[in-house]
Amino acid sequence: MARDDQRALQYEQTLMYGRYTQELGAYAKEEAARLREEGGWRRSVTERSRSLELLEYDRGRCAKCRICTVRCQKFLISRVGEDWIFLILLGLFMALVSWVVDFAIAICLQAQKWMYGGLESNVFLQYLAWVTYPVVLITFSAGFTQILAPQAVGSGIPEMKTILRGVVLKEYLTFKTFVAKVIGLTCALGSGMPLGKEGPFVHIASLCAALLSKFMSLFGGIYENESRNIEMLAAACAVGVGCCFAAPIGGVLFSIEVTSTFFAVRNYWRGFFAATFSAFIFRVLAVWNRDEETITALFKTRFRLDFPFDLQELPAFAVIGIASGFGGALFVYLNRLIVQFIRKQKTINKFLMKKRLLYPALVTLLVSTLTFPPGFGQFMAGKLTQKESLVTLLDNRTWAKQGIAEGFDYIGNSQAWNHPQVNVFVTLVLFIVMKFWMSALATTIPVPCGAFMPVFVIGAAFGRLVGESMAAWFPDGIHSDGTIYPIVPGGYAVVGAAALSGAVTHTVSTAVIVFELTGQISHILPVMIAVILANAVAQSLQPSLYDSIIRIKKLPYLPELGWGHHEKYNIRVEDIMIRDVMYITLNCCYRDLHDVLLTGHLKTLALLESSESMILLGSIERVQLQALLSLQLGRPRRLEYLRDRATAEKKRLSMVSHPGSEDGSQRVNQEVRFQISTEESSFSSTPTPSMKPLKPALKRSSVVDRPPDIPMPTSPQDHSGNTLKNLFCVNPETEGLEDDFDVDDDMTIREIAEWEENQLDEQVNFDNCKIDPAPFQLVERTSLHKTHTIFSLLGLDHAYVTSIGRLIGVVSLKELRKAIEGSVAVKGVKVRPPLSSFRDSGTSGSSSSNSENEATELHKLWDRHKSMSLPREHLASDSDEKSQ
Amino acid sequence: MARDDQRALQYEQTLMYGRYTQELGAYAKEEAARLREEGGWRRSVTERSRSLELLEYDRGRCAKCRICTVRCQKFLISRVGEDWIFLILLGLFMALVSWVVDFAIAICLQAQKWMYGGLESNVFLQYLAWVTYPVVLITFSAGFTQILAPQAVGSGIPEMKTILRGVVLKEYLTFKTFVAKVIGLTCALGSGMPLGKEGPFVHIASLCAALLSKFMSLFGGIYENESRNIEMLAAACAVGVGCCFAAPIGGVLFSIEVTSTFFAVRNYWRGFFAATFSAFIFRVLAVWNRDEETITALFKTRFRLDFPFDLQELPAFAVIGIASGFGGALFVYLNRLIVQFIRKQKTINKFLMKKRLLYPALVTLLVSTLTFPPGFGQFMAGKLTQKESLVTLLDNRTWAKQGIAEGFDYIGNSQAWNHPQVNVFVTLVLFIVMKFWMSALATTIPVPCGAFMPVFVIGAAFGRLVGESMAAWFPDGIHSDGTIYPIVPGGYAVVGAAALSGAVTHTVSTAVIVFELTGQISHILPVMIAVILANAVAQSLQPSLYDSIIRIKKLPYLPELGWGHHEKYNIRVEDIMIRDVMYITLNCCYRDLHDVLLTGHLKTLALLESSESMILLGSIERVQLQALLSLQLGRPRRLEYLRDRATAEKKRLSMVSHPGSEDGSQRVNQEVRFQISTEESSFSSTPTPSMKPLKPALKRSSVVDRPPDIPMPTSPQDHSGNTLKNLFCVNPETEGLEDDFDVDDDMTIREIAEWEENQLDEQVNFDNCKIDPAPFQLVERTSLHKTHTIFSLLGLDHAYVTSIGRLIGVVSLKELRKAIEGSVAVKGVKVRPPLSSFRDSGTSGSSSSNSENEATELHKLWDRHKSMSLPREHLASDSDEKSQ
Repeated sequence: MARDDQRALQYEQTLMYGRYTQELGAYAKEEAARLREEGGWRRSVTERSRSLELLEYDRGRCAKCRICTVRCQKFLISRVGEDWIFLILLGLFMALVSWVVDFAIAICLQAQKWMYGGLESNVFLQYLAWVTYPVVLITFSAGFTQILAPQAVGSGIPEMKTILRGVVLKEYLTFKTFVAKVIGLTCALGSGMPLGKEGPFVHIASLCAALLSKFMSLFGGIYENESRNIEMLAAACAVGVGCCFAAPIGGVLFSIEVTSTFFAVRNYWRGFFAATFSAFIFRVLAVWNRDEETITALFKTRFRLDFPFDLQELPAFAVIGIASGFGGALFVYLNRLIVQFIRKQKTINKFLMKKRLLYPALVTLLVSTLTFPPGFGQFMAGKLTQKESLVTLLDNRTWAKQGIAEGFDYIGNSQAWNHPQVNVFVTLVLFIVMKFWMSALATTIPVPCGAFMPVFVIGAAFGRLVGESMAAWFPDGIHSDGTIYPIVPGGYAVVGAAALSGAVTHTVSTAVIVFELTGQISHILPVMIAVILANAVAQSLQPSLYDSIIRIKKLPYLPELGWGHHEKYNIRVEDIMIRDVMYITLNCCYRDLHDVLLTGHLKTLALLESSESMILLGSIERVQLQALLSLQLGRPRRLEYLRDRATAEKKRLSMVSHPGSEDGSQRVNQEVRFQISTEESSFSSTPTPSMKPLKPALKRSSVVDRPPDIPMPTSPQDHSGNTLKNLFCVNPETEGLEDDFDVDDDMTIREIAEWEENQLDEQVNFDNCKIDPAPFQLVERTSLHKTHTIFSLLGLDHAYVTSIGRLIGVVSLKELRKAIEGSVAVKGVKVRPPLSSFRDSGTSGSSSSNSENEATELHKLWDRHKSMSLPREHLASDSDEKSQ
Repeated sequence: MARDDQRALQYEQTLMYGRYTQELGAYAKEEAARLREEGGWRRSVTERSRSLELLEYDRGRCAKCRICTVRCQKFLISRVGEDWIFLILLGLFMALVSWVVDFAIAICLQAQKWMYGGLESNVFLQYLAWVTYPVVLITFSAGFTQILAPQAVGSGIPEMKTILRGVVLKEYLTFKTFVAKVIGLTCALGSGMPLGKEGPFVHIASLCAALLSKFMSLFGGIYENESRNIEMLAAACAVGVGCCFAAPIGGVLFSIEVTSTFFAVRNYWRGFFAATFSAFIFRVLAVWNRDEETITALFKTRFRLDFPFDLQELPAFAVIGIASGFGGALFVYLNRLIVQFIRKQKTINKFLMKKRLLYPALVTLLVSTLTFPPGFGQFMAGKLTQKESLVTLLDNRTWAKQGIAEGFDYIGNSQAWNHPQVNVFVTLVLFIVMKFWMSALATTIPVPCGAFMPVFVIGAAFGRLVGESMAAWFPDGIHSDGTIYPIVPGGYAVVGAAALSGAVTHTVSTAVIVFELTGQISHILPVMIAVILANAVAQSLQPSLYDSIIRIKKLPYLPELGWGHHEKYNIRVEDIMIRDVMYITLNCCYRDLHDVLLTGHLKTLALLESSESMILLGSIERVQLQALLSLQLGRPRRLEYLRDRATAEKKRLSMVSHPGSEDGSQRVNQEVRFQISTEESSFSSTPTPSMKPLKPALKRSSVVDRPPDIPMPTSPQDHSGNTLKNLFCVNPETEGLEDDFDVDDDMTIREIAEWEENQLDEQVNFDNCKIDPAPFQLVERTSLHKTHTIFSLLGLDHAYVTSIGRLIGVVSLKELRKAIEGSVAVKGVKVRPPLSSFRDSGTSGSSSSNSENEATELHKLWDRHKSMSLPREHLASDSDEKSQ
């Protein structure tokens, strides 16, 4: 069922926070126990098999040889558990994937060119071929992805960012998604649309790592450790970028910047190791395929080394940086604008939702029509593929005419930039403008695609434009004394590419990627200056592309604190915390529990010693409490009560009578219509025999992946009665009717209600309840800055604010997000933080619309229950319908 | 007094953990309060001045102009608070420092060469000049540093690592240290000894940042925020490396790898920004000084771009990597061995401690004698400075003879490598071997110096050696088809340099530094492979050089978890925690407090609700408790008691009598000998009138830097009595005898003892005590891995282990360190962790020798007190001596 929800991409339902605390508690405990057991089991197995093997081999002839082999094998298997084996395998596999994808893309693009070239006689046919080919590929890609795994759509970096933040998006790391992403990406890029492969490769590498982990767990238990998996995912992100651009260092840095908030330096080597290996294999494959003579950079440049640029050119580089900053912000804004525009237009939206493949096809049609080389494409080098454009843009020769005599020989692909009537500057400007909105539009298509490479190319074109202008302005270079060093527009292109991609992604490491891509680091200072300036401008205007997508997709993520906003040091937790904390006490009765469950909205509730002392003992998951309540009011307990009553009756009457089984079953059948399953929410703690009584220690997340071997609690026809109905009014299941109780449930609804009322007055027994004994605590004076740090560091969902053990408030991600967005919006130093006005009003409800709705609905049910405590027809009919 | 301790470099006394929790509590609160007050004050001041100004200027002639200027000025001042201003200033300043230091070093080295060259007629004089010059410089450097600021000795990276971990080493960031470090470093490097400037520059940059922060705090309050300062220090480390090598990217990465455990990505841009700016200015200065034509790399190489290396050369690169790994480990080991050898030889040690300048002089003498060019130096290119050696080693031509006809022209500095009788291979081998131990020895000299550059040069020489061998082996290169690409030994040198320096420092980013230093990235894959292999080998053999120094210096630092040691996932907190936690309860009496203080050793004590419930409410600093106790038993209270008694007496007798003041003072004088000052440990909470009653909220570190404006508590002649004496038996101060109490302290010792016994039975009043209400809590099942992460993330000193609010144990850094070292020592997968045997024995005392001693001494005193509760002569005479 959860699966279906996720397939519909309803993120809110599938997501949850608090992975961390879960891990600290129940998860770690169970895992450790299982590991120990497994370890012991495995050891005994291997020991037994070993002795058997030894016996067997001793009788053979080349026994020594064989024993040696077996030992080697064992050694190897024992080594499989080591990190570096995993990383090598990951790197190797990703390099192969990257190379194969590249190869397939190249073939696709060649096929298009071949078709286009073969139809040169007829322009209309040529146009048809030019346009149909990408439309078909993109439509296929979109359809394939939609059907197989809708999670594969888009870049994947925002999702990875969220996953590495500690949120569990399990469906994002399945084999189906992997297949959909790889094939979808190949088709999408093969169409020649302005799309990139970088973001998807980060996702693919993570998928690879997750699948490899699963596979490797057959050999060693360590692969199932959660924190190890997170570490490996972080390394995988680096591998993704690394093998995409053959840029190991840039890959590591880019993946850190893009996905992490706090980076564990001890994982650094993992990323480097895997990314280097992957990049190495990726390039070696090219050498083996005779594409290259030796291992070099992907887009090798040949700028002069002795005098790469003059000091006086630096202002031009700075201009590129600042302009790229604005451009990058504009790109992010444009991209979001397109998405929001289409979402808002309800009629368009409805139409497109029905015909999901229409939108990709239309966009592709538009883009490919405009790039049609004999048409408008001739003014914007439409003939060139993305890769070819980039290679020509990074050329170290100058295109603009140097004086009159010598003009640049446009040979090979560079020819595309040369139009007989139109200046090269016009071509470049058109290229930049057209590609800009095309890329922004194309990245909204629901296919696996990234935006890095298109932006990179646009940046290179912009840099080239500036460079060519400079070259035209100073034909003999700027340097005054001695040798003439002409200006190298290719260097400007490198700077522009790094700056614009840096601005869009809000990263500095694009500089390193550029060096690794071009194989030259001579322009390091201009590139760094431009990238930093671009970042400064872009970050002050817009969120990064990935953060923008995170907001569009409403993924749960904590925004970063802005640059140098001082007030974040002055806002304190007491300014933002919610003071009206929902809590339960150790000695509360079930009625309190019930009331609290009806009103609160947080996933966990604070457990206090008593409402006088307010001492915080721990926190309990909502689900656990619901389970407790359902246990208390459930049918088994009522039957027990009936049994006890019957025994008492028996004793009193000293008479034994077997009630007719037929009659009893009939009664049950009659009552079925009022029964509601509590299965969904109580399975994790219903006392099945397999469940050992846990030490009251640990916490569980509310969406627990049920292990397949634990039997479903057999309470499909639980007579949960009135009170529970208010809490769990969901799909009643009434197939199985087997019942091993020897007492019949012959209570009337009124009796049940009475019984429940009595039950609610009993004191809660927390023995079987999993309690998180150490929820995170803050002090009321903790600054917002510190709180943000702690939340990001530990991946917290909420933290209690205590004062010497006394609970005084709670801060959840929501409050924090609100506070940060509030603080970021306000400029300048404020003495009184803008949020201190919350201090008093914070007590009144500031719950989100979502949870408020939830609570409201529960309230409604509760009110209804109050008004009519006798059988309700409409509820009954509701469940009747489903039980038929 | 604390100052004196630190000057003697007794690290243990000056250091403390727990900065984090302190900050969370008292610090943040006070800071915020102060900020608000200050802000308010400043605002009112500026508003007033503004209106005044406006009034004034309106009367002037060019009023508009002036107003505009003033506004601009104000705007600028308001901007001073921004991070980027700070970073630009820091970068600018550090670039200047770096350039000036380089310039001075170059002049020093030139002077030596000039002296050496001028005395060519007489070898003995030449030798004398060659040897005396460095000896004088090093001795001066050592002496100067020793006198001015002994903290400036050594690299500084270990200390910065510790500081960034959250430990407060205030004396490391003073102006004195800055001066000592800069001048000491210049002299040390000017001597031509194999020392580096990188580590010291990290320290210098941090010093700069700290001083600049202080300076800037004159403009804006934000500069005094602790967490901001830590962020700026991290950026400063990047600047240090960046402006030392003109390597901004490498600088940032290296500083992250070397100093951080968890890196906040939001600080990333700070480092990049400042380091880029710094590197830029550093290189621009060189251009302005006409040293360079334009901005290029520091050690520019000119390898060919089209075919940098053949795929078949990769094994050779891998060999360099692995050999460098062993070499790096050997270097670290050798360095530590030398230190430990000298420390162990007690006679040598004693002698050297007396004549502190002898050791540097001797080492310098030895090294410079061996490098004397006409002597042994001729076989190891002794003539060349470090920089010259590196430039020649990175040369892109081949030294070994290619066939017979063409030999390499050794021109310029390369001549030094060419010895008429001896092969260049022998020269290289001798260079490597000699420099290896020389560098290891030289870095133990107590002057400001790093080891990075010497190691870098040795690595380059080793790479060159392998490269030359390869070139000799394959004179026509390895590539088989088509063009002949001869082997480039310079490329091997680059690989070797990166690999060896990476192995010694355990970093991968040396690769990036190498690219930035040489300005070429064509060898990226060989370099990455070699660096990773070198790291893999070195990390499995030895700690990094910086960690080794941390251990030698016994700095408080948490060791890293080893690579892929699985058992760290299986060890749990309950295996390592101390179960016998010292605690106090809310309703305890002062006697309990006293007993607990006598036995425990941790800096903080747990505060429980009651010993039955064991519910953890918070933790209290030991110092706070001592203060509470001293308050309870102090003279003011006793006087109050006396006053009350006197009043009662008065009432009873209805008679007023003024006791002779002369008599009283005499009595006081008589008793002075028994009085002991409690000032040292109680100043932070003695209720001086300036102290507002704090909400019982927050925690303080035990070594509090007393703000200069808070008056010393005036209790120099506190009659603390017997019980307190046991706790604070230190320098009694008895100068001032002013006393504004109107009752005389005429109690006898016995009376005092009795009174104290009564006082001890009273219940403790925690109202004025600073309590940390949210000490960090773990669950007993938390894994070691997770615990380590949390401790490193949050910079914790200790964490309580709780189970639903109940305190069951405590884990401090010590236990954790022990556990990690235990787990790292054991190899392979263990099902049962080696530490689970601790589980039961852990309860018995496992306190360190240091704190045990402390406790033992207290015990002794306590016993003594028990045995003789009447006046003690020897204590009295002790205090008498000092009071005279």
